[in-house]
Amino acid sequence: MSSSSKTDPGRLFEDFRLGEVIRHPTPRTLHAGDASLYLALTGDRHALLCADPFARACGLAGAPLDPWLVFHTVFGKTVPDISRNAVANLGYAEGRWLALVHPGETLRASSEVIGLKRSSNGRTGVVWVRTQGLRADGAPVLEYVRWVLVHARNAQAAPGEEAVVPTLAPAVAAESLWTPPDLRFADYPWEAAGARWAYEDYEPGERIDHGDGMTVEEAEHQLATRLYQNTAKVHFDAHAQADSRFGRRLIYGGVVISLARALSFNGLQNAALTLALNGGRHVAPLFAGDTVYAWSSVLDKVALSESVGALRLRLVAAKNTPCADFPDRAADGADHPAVILDLDYWAATPRRG
Amino acid sequence: MSSSSKTDPGRLFEDFRLGEVIRHPTPRTLHAGDASLYLALTGDRHALLCADPFARACGLAGAPLDPWLVFHTVFGKTVPDISRNAVANLGYAEGRWLALVHPGETLRASSEVIGLKRSSNGRTGVVWVRTQGLRADGAPVLEYVRWVLVHARNAQAAPGEEAVVPTLAPAVAAESLWTPPDLRFADYPWEAAGARWAYEDYEPGERIDHGDGMTVEEAEHQLATRLYQNTAKVHFDAHAQADSRFGRRLIYGGVVISLARALSFNGLQNAALTLALNGGRHVAPLFAGDTVYAWSSVLDKVALSESVGALRLRLVAAKNTPCADFPDRAADGADHPAVILDLDYWAATPRRG
Amino acid sequence: MSSSSKTDPGRLFEDFRLGEVIRHPTPRTLHAGDASLYLALTGDRHALLCADPFARACGLAGAPLDPWLVFHTVFGKTVPDISRNAVANLGYAEGRWLALVHPGETLRASSEVIGLKRSSNGRTGVVWVRTQGLRADGAPVLEYVRWVLVHARNAQAAPGEEAVVPTLAPAVAAESLWTPPDLRFADYPWEAAGARWAYEDYEPGERIDHGDGMTVEEAEHQLATRLYQNTAKVHFDAHAQADSRFGRRLIYGGVVISLARALSFNGLQNAALTLALNGGRHVAPLFAGDTVYAWSSVLDKVALSESVGALRLRLVAAKNTPCADFPDRAADGADHPAVILDLDYWAATPRRG
Repeated sequence: MSSSSKTDPGRLFEDFRLGEVIRHPTPRTLHAGDASLYLALTGDRHALLCADPFARACGLAGAPLDPWLVFHTVFGKTVPDISRNAVANLGYAEGRWLALVHPGETLRASSEVIGLKRSSNGRTGVVWVRTQGLRADGAPVLEYVRWVLVHARNAQAAPGEEAVVPTLAPAVAAESLWTPPDLRFADYPWEAAGARWAYEDYEPGERIDHGDGMTVEEAEHQLATRLYQNTAKVHFDAHAQADSRFGRRLIYGGVVISLARALSFNGLQNAALTLALNGGRHVAPLFAGDTVYAWSSVLDKVALSESVGALRLRLVAAKNTPCADFPDRAADGADHPAVILDLDYWAATPRRG
Repeated sequence: MSSSSKTDPGRLFEDFRLGEVIRHPTPRTLHAGDASLYLALTGDRHALLCADPFARACGLAGAPLDPWLVFHTVFGKTVPDISRNAVANLGYAEGRWLALVHPGETLRASSEVIGLKRSSNGRTGVVWVRTQGLRADGAPVLEYVRWVLVHARNAQAAPGEEAVVPTLAPAVAAESLWTPPDLRFADYPWEAAGARWAYEDYEPGERIDHGDGMTVEEAEHQLATRLYQNTAKVHFDAHAQADSRFGRRLIYGGVVISLARALSFNGLQNAALTLALNGGRHVAPLFAGDTVYAWSSVLDKVALSESVGALRLRLVAAKNTPCADFPDRAADGADHPAVILDLDYWAATPRRG
Repeated sequence: MSSSSKTDPGRLFEDFRLGEVIRHPTPRTLHAGDASLYLALTGDRHALLCADPFARACGLAGAPLDPWLVFHTVFGKTVPDISRNAVANLGYAEGRWLALVHPGETLRASSEVIGLKRSSNGRTGVVWVRTQGLRADGAPVLEYVRWVLVHARNAQAAPGEEAVVPTLAPAVAAESLWTPPDLRFADYPWEAAGARWAYEDYEPGERIDHGDGMTVEEAEHQLATRLYQNTAKVHFDAHAQADSRFGRRLIYGGVVISLARALSFNGLQNAALTLALNGGRHVAPLFAGDTVYAWSSVLDKVALSESVGALRLRLVAAKNTPCADFPDRAADGADHPAVILDLDYWAATPRRG
């Protein structure tokens, strides 16, 4: 019997070429059932994303899929090519959603390698990719940059190998924010939304403790991560992980983002629609059995149209530590031991009008 | 930095006013995917609720959503306003389903405060609400009374504070039962239903042991409770619950109802459609790892039309105790230590014709 | 009070009659939400089964439901009548899928008893059934033979009781394979599929280690098995199983098949559509907490049309043992201690053309 090499082992650092465009396989049609599962997995309650009449009152054809479900689906497509064996997911930048995705639409993904830098010890390297999520007709629905630490095949740099580190914007500029052309909040159903807080009620500097906590089980994060067709081994293989640094399965960072976003409903009830991902860092890993809490601060705000404003928000998630005291970096920049996520994003919010 | 008070902490006893109508936020469009999830979470098998051709043979447009999925969805909407910090869910009465809900329809909820009574120790109080579940067009799909024990802000009654305890019917009268106008069981697909037992085969006094047991995992009840957008902290926050009376997460009582109902298929195969909730009591809490068993007794029966009858059923669920011996209250009225649910409801059943 | 015998206890060996046709109850309409759940439970990524445009490029109306979701749904229908109290599921043969099933279609099942043989100790017996899965219009979508070991009511054979053991084909003949009439792989979207391996690239004798491992939680297999409306007690009742031979819940063998199939994507990316089940054996039980790995070998291949080929594959799953060394039976025929599944099936694969 012969052994086959048809199994895709994933790429190592040397397998990436600057400027290379990787068209990721396995497109996926998303359905209302995916929205239901997303809701069951996160507890999200934003009426704009789960009630058709509410979405229609805001000018949309119906409730779109949560932009983060779109993000995780696109991200999942990139994992086999980019980060199947990644050491760590280091950061995000320049993320913008470019179209709403409705049930029945099909997503695929494509990534361009825009940066490469071997680590000083030679055994790993950082890969920067700019990823696009695309509809079946080729229209982009999302783009973002992420960088990951991947294993290198050889411990030494190849002759002529040069580090290229892309220059990334610290945040998506307000004038680059995309909003759905039909979106208008002039007749926003305030009562149905769950809170009266409008764009005008939020000010930079304001901090919000979201109050609730959500404990995560192994079955839950595995279901979510498989729903996104994210195949990274570290999330699923307890047998292999027993010998790893942490001794157990790691929870996909996107699960943390979505849980923290769902928790943030309480205080940000009207910031349903994420528009842009300015940056983000998975500060520490989350494990099954841990409880996620979250707090937000308002970083900036900008009016986008007569009825639509955007809030730039910092979303911080902590584990096993309620956030009434807003756990944060120390004055010396050291991470707070409980913090697991530090995310910077823009979300659309109705103006009071 | 300033701290915001935009986080909704939920109401305390003093925050409820007699006669006040609370329009609960966050409407939700239910999809066939919710029905699939409900089925995966409960194991229900009633063909009327999961097979379109079967439902059409009974005069309906297609399989409606399980009335209990409708109940939990409506109930979930009320939690942030009524019972977010409740000490205990005490009871239900006068519950009637008033329309079938089909995939694609949107539900919201509204509650009127119909009773208030401070506890003798002053630190808590009972709140009675009559809740309506409504379609987007305002048509009611469900109404029920429930009462909950909530914390009081002050340990002493306010001047003039008077107890008002509503008078509630011991059961929904047979003549008040709503059935779908098109429902007819004249051509009931007996073979496809799973059993030949008709309205005529059940007699008051009869008891049925449903035989099977179902063990509940943390991930399962959390998925279900989030699907219903029920945000009560006690179901999700293991970290906070560690310091609670029980030391762990409590399972939402609606999960118990739905599991017991699904188990009751075996013996009540043709009682798919719940029509009314006469009363109910969560006798004791259920925890993850426990196994639910159930038995039923027939309390009453009434013919509603030529082909449709209704059975008034008592559904008793027990934990970690098979129900071949019908665990029940002792002669002195003391609860059986294994019993967790005691529910009294009406369900439609085909007449043999 | 009287006790009712309306609860179906399931059949014992003596309750089966040779030639008897059992029409299984509780038809079920499958939805896109079931496909989403199946994907979240298995991690499958075959674009033909989860992306409508990909399926259309292959001549189909849209992505069909995974043939194994169809199998488990049909199988689940048979459990209350055939194997509710089975001791063991012994084997499968002569399985053929006969139509694609699309979201919105309703499935029911029917079985003919084709073999009966009491065990030598008299207390159990083997029952062979040929099961059909049928659409609402009566068109068959699947047929297969399975045999199970069931408890006998009496320890002694009845007078005249004779063993009848059916003769079963060792494999479905290539000329009996059904493929969708519109299926054509002439314009197969190779890039979107995830690998370039075509029918021509696989040769009998070739072995493929699928690399990844998937750990299974109690909540996951229970959700899956309830989704299939499979009611076998051993999967759900931890309380009763505590006194069983294994002391805990057994995972439904179909969960193992689907996980192994999903893992096999890596190496068999283009073998999305299962056509036939030649045989299969659940070599050992899987328990929650175990990690599933899988390898495949190519047993045979046959061209079915100008663009469609079929691979006959052996799929072996092992627990807590990566499959780089292809764990298999010993030379003396003894099972490998890690192997839990040994499945023999045909799958459609594009020819390079």
